[in-house]
Amino acid sequence: MTAPLFDTVCFVGIGLINSSIARAVRQEGLARRLVTLDTSAKARQTALELGVADAASDDPAAVVPGADLVIIGTPVGAVETVARTIGPHLSAGAIVSDVGSVKIAVIRDVTPYLPEGVHFVPGHPIAGTEHSGPESGFADLFRGRWCILTPLPGTDGPAIEKVTALWTAMGSMIEVMDPSHHDQVLAITSHLPHLIAYTIVGTANDLQGHLQQEVIKFSASGFRDFTRIAASDPIMWRDIFLSNKDAVLEVIQRFTEDLTALQRAIRWGEGEVLEKRFTETRAIRRAIVDARQA
Amino acid sequence: MTAPLFDTVCFVGIGLINSSIARAVRQEGLARRLVTLDTSAKARQTALELGVADAASDDPAAVVPGADLVIIGTPVGAVETVARTIGPHLSAGAIVSDVGSVKIAVIRDVTPYLPEGVHFVPGHPIAGTEHSGPESGFADLFRGRWCILTPLPGTDGPAIEKVTALWTAMGSMIEVMDPSHHDQVLAITSHLPHLIAYTIVGTANDLQGHLQQEVIKFSASGFRDFTRIAASDPIMWRDIFLSNKDAVLEVIQRFTEDLTALQRAIRWGEGEVLEKRFTETRAIRRAIVDARQA
Repeated sequence: MTAPLFDTVCFVGIGLINSSIARAVRQEGLARRLVTLDTSAKARQTALELGVADAASDDPAAVVPGADLVIIGTPVGAVETVARTIGPHLSAGAIVSDVGSVKIAVIRDVTPYLPEGVHFVPGHPIAGTEHSGPESGFADLFRGRWCILTPLPGTDGPAIEKVTALWTAMGSMIEVMDPSHHDQVLAITSHLPHLIAYTIVGTANDLQGHLQQEVIKFSASGFRDFTRIAASDPIMWRDIFLSNKDAVLEVIQRFTEDLTALQRAIRWGEGEVLEKRFTETRAIRRAIVDARQA
Repeated sequence: MTAPLFDTVCFVGIGLINSSIARAVRQEGLARRLVTLDTSAKARQTALELGVADAASDDPAAVVPGADLVIIGTPVGAVETVARTIGPHLSAGAIVSDVGSVKIAVIRDVTPYLPEGVHFVPGHPIAGTEHSGPESGFADLFRGRWCILTPLPGTDGPAIEKVTALWTAMGSMIEVMDPSHHDQVLAITSHLPHLIAYTIVGTANDLQGHLQQEVIKFSASGFRDFTRIAASDPIMWRDIFLSNKDAVLEVIQRFTEDLTALQRAIRWGEGEVLEKRFTETRAIRRAIVDARQA
């Protein structure tokens, strides 16, 4: 039997993503011991009951020392507090990683608090569901999905390799990217779609009584496709938009210009403009299906 | 054995919806004979091969006379031509229905061409997929889904009852609605979502080479939820937007105001505005799941 990749993994914030990692780590035998740091007593209790944590505490001194991998899985607005709190308790040589949907802000907020000899390998698994909390996790969440790593220049090579090995063992494909490029790509593929989904579902939510009931009743005509991602965790998404402000505002601007062009084509009855645009978009869907990400 | 509901059903345009109806009618024994009127030789050939048509022609004189139910399943921009072409060949007492996503324009375009004694019962099944053509249909498409009927005042009661019986036998629930109310409800639940999906996928499509590949690669982060409906039939959707212009422009305006409000909250770092909005939208998703339309 080969030794597991890690001795002790400490999950900071045991929500959907971290509890899914914990399950996969358990299933694949990638660590000897799993511990949880979480401010919520309910989350800690659930993690212990589900067996995704061997120990759980709200006190970093109780669970952080001795961990050779610490994964921060809180909303990105909380990572600075997390880093400040856990920093003094990190063991020499420990690897710190995260799963945040924004990378520049996370690196800015975490790096100052990490002691010398601790290796930071920021990560972002491109996987998730609209559900939240440790009970929503599952070991196969990352299988066949991409995980983006955004290590800074000069980061310890073996630390990057160990984080890569972890994700590969959980079934993910790895992409290494510059943090700022990550934030631009995700602004388009993830942040804008979520904002649009929240907006359109919010527009429907503002309708009065009977009409709102009808929107729910007849949602199979297109609307329901948006409601899944608009049910994602509000705090997590609030933090993402505030932390990736510049890239998000830039893509909203592009989107609004494109919507205005279609709106104008509808107003003036320019059928050929609509038809051309609607034909182009089919190719993107085909490419996603072909890439097995549908 | 009870007699089938109809003797001969004529499907005008044998695409996804009409071919699904044909399969369900066949499966449930709701008609004795199925015929197809379609200008596409390929579609006629496929319909005959699939057994969803006993006869197929591009000549109304060959398939319309003798049909006691005619269902128009073409893009809504083509229904006026269809009505003008089939009008002279309709048998006395025949029922004409349709499956168009817009009702005021269809009623305006069809009614003038129907001879005395022919009953028009406009319909719209709230079901579909992103695929097109007769080969994409399946008999269960309408099971557990709503079908909206928008008969005009004074329409023959027994004709409405027969169309209702048809949809009920195919597994649908029926809602009767005023045509103008239908067009408003669908502008929100269906037309706006499709326009937004086409827009966001189009915005991504305009990106240059490498970035576009990354959008496809990392589409599981939200983007792919939009691409399914943005792969819907371009001609069908061009016609819907042009035919329901006023209602669509009105909901685009509401949507744009709501998006602008969120954009402003992001720019000014108003986290509480975002959090409040994102919390409200979760309730709508739950209601859709509870209504079994998810």
